[in-house]
Amino acid sequence: MSSVLETTLGQIQPLDAQLAEQAQHHLDRLTKPPGSLGRLEELARRYVTITGQTLPRIGGKAVVVFAADHGVTAEGVSAYPQEVTAQMVLNFLHGGAAINALARQAGAAVHVVDIGVASELPALPGLTIRNVRRGTANIAKGPAMSRDEAQQALEVGIDMAARCHRDGASLVATGDMGIGNTTPSSALVALFTGASVANVTGYGTGIDAATHTHKVAMIEAALRVNAPRADDPLGALAAVGGLEIGGIAGLILGCASRRLPVLVDGHIATAAALVAAAFNPLVKDYMIASHASVEVGQHIAWQFMGQAPLMDLQLRLGEGTGAVLAMHLVESAVRMYTDMATFDQAGVADRDTPAS
Amino acid sequence: MSSVLETTLGQIQPLDAQLAEQAQHHLDRLTKPPGSLGRLEELARRYVTITGQTLPRIGGKAVVVFAADHGVTAEGVSAYPQEVTAQMVLNFLHGGAAINALARQAGAAVHVVDIGVASELPALPGLTIRNVRRGTANIAKGPAMSRDEAQQALEVGIDMAARCHRDGASLVATGDMGIGNTTPSSALVALFTGASVANVTGYGTGIDAATHTHKVAMIEAALRVNAPRADDPLGALAAVGGLEIGGIAGLILGCASRRLPVLVDGHIATAAALVAAAFNPLVKDYMIASHASVEVGQHIAWQFMGQAPLMDLQLRLGEGTGAVLAMHLVESAVRMYTDMATFDQAGVADRDTPAS
Repeated sequence: MSSVLETTLGQIQPLDAQLAEQAQHHLDRLTKPPGSLGRLEELARRYVTITGQTLPRIGGKAVVVFAADHGVTAEGVSAYPQEVTAQMVLNFLHGGAAINALARQAGAAVHVVDIGVASELPALPGLTIRNVRRGTANIAKGPAMSRDEAQQALEVGIDMAARCHRDGASLVATGDMGIGNTTPSSALVALFTGASVANVTGYGTGIDAATHTHKVAMIEAALRVNAPRADDPLGALAAVGGLEIGGIAGLILGCASRRLPVLVDGHIATAAALVAAAFNPLVKDYMIASHASVEVGQHIAWQFMGQAPLMDLQLRLGEGTGAVLAMHLVESAVRMYTDMATFDQAGVADRDTPAS
Repeated sequence: MSSVLETTLGQIQPLDAQLAEQAQHHLDRLTKPPGSLGRLEELARRYVTITGQTLPRIGGKAVVVFAADHGVTAEGVSAYPQEVTAQMVLNFLHGGAAINALARQAGAAVHVVDIGVASELPALPGLTIRNVRRGTANIAKGPAMSRDEAQQALEVGIDMAARCHRDGASLVATGDMGIGNTTPSSALVALFTGASVANVTGYGTGIDAATHTHKVAMIEAALRVNAPRADDPLGALAAVGGLEIGGIAGLILGCASRRLPVLVDGHIATAAALVAAAFNPLVKDYMIASHASVEVGQHIAWQFMGQAPLMDLQLRLGEGTGAVLAMHLVESAVRMYTDMATFDQAGVADRDTPAS
């Protein structure tokens, strides 16, 4: 019997080029100069093509925030202690974090998933407990987790996509919480893009220059010690990844298999997107790059995947904040696509009409 | 007796630096690394400081779309015939234009103002008829309008700010419609910033290279023939401006005098913002630059005013589309400011707390 992961990978279909062409044709008949709504037109065309809805309507929205801890924090790569991961999960559940405020504004449900927090969390409403292991091992010294655990993390993400779909979501955003998680993310970005570690490693939530040098050294050590391979995404995730990174990669794969557009957040989510794309390159067509990170590696990662983020508001928080902000843009694009009049309907002269 | 314009200019107050500091202090206590919400923090701080609301809440929203015609279209500077201005006004009133769709998504009222359309428009619901003159004269040959007409246009804009305020708006966006209006806008940007005409003149809604060369020559002619001065904004608006540009400049001044934050749209609105700032530099603190235009001059204009637009979605439509999209960001920022828990409230360790 094939695994949930294998089944999901097999269900991801290429997009229908004819549908994209029809959507573009519709956009060109609307009362505006062709292409003048820039990336909103791209978003509308992509939304129609991904979902197959020729009269698209965005119903439910959801952001899934995967929380996990990282053994590499023992190396002093973050400005915050590991305990903050669990504390922030409780903050999410009480509705006091940035992602809660922004999701409320966007009308999106917030799902919080304990996929690998180090300490035991109480069963609270809104918390999905799917703890694969109590934090990763220190990647500077050995693998983050086993291949089996990496697969479990991916399948938790796939399950969350199924749940969003069941709940009626038609737009999903990725979120993350995990002190120290820019370190495995940069390791994955270096591995999959082939860029040097120094070129893809930033300053996380606010470390100093000495800590940054140390962080680069720890990522180089992780890649040397574990020797992950870009053509083995499951092994790479197990070697230098993180549990929330696996959850996000699974969420992306699960959304793609259900033709659900998925907004990819910042640096951590982009590393997860690289993992997902290494499993099946078709998945890239279902992702929407939402927000540029101040983490330099993210820019390189999106270039590698042939996209550019929609916004750059100099966010460096994670949690899914950039992805949830971008929901407003996707909804605006869909609204434009369905609500605007065509030149014919409105009796407006197009540029090809001679001036009278 | 002093004019509405003079009274309004006298009412614009400098922002309270202490209030800005208090807002920043509040932002730094919220459960996130300091500054990690980037430009959302800047927006929240500015919203609080502009309005004076320490517990801000965005109630009503409005976009005011000023429509006018331009005599300079006789020189063949646009890809569309002048008739399109009036046709698009009817499209706005029937709800079929991009600005209608995007305003609906943002929950903003759309006010359409005939401030200088060349043809007579029927009295339709939603249309405010304040036609100052039936389109400007050809600026390549002489002044666009008289000083008195320029002042009337500004005062129509001030009146619209008062109306938005009366209607309970707490966030206002500028909009414009006017075939040919990138030409006077580029003339004003060149005048106020001191940049060369070639450096501030773009391709409008889609002209070819030959038309672009001709457009630059027409703008240079307009500046030579009319010899406007940057220290005489009323004269400059009359010489090389437009009626909708005057309306927008007045709207900005009127919003500033009422402590109403005003989202400034693309190239045309930015030219109007320069006019407003030339009347009273304090007004800059009340403007929020919403969207980068593909028109090169806009970038130079915002640099000159010490701001950078929030987004760049490669829009080149006008109508207020970029400003209305940015409403979602301002609302998200305010929501973040009011809804997030502080470190103390949430029991989350701050970076200064030693790891346990």
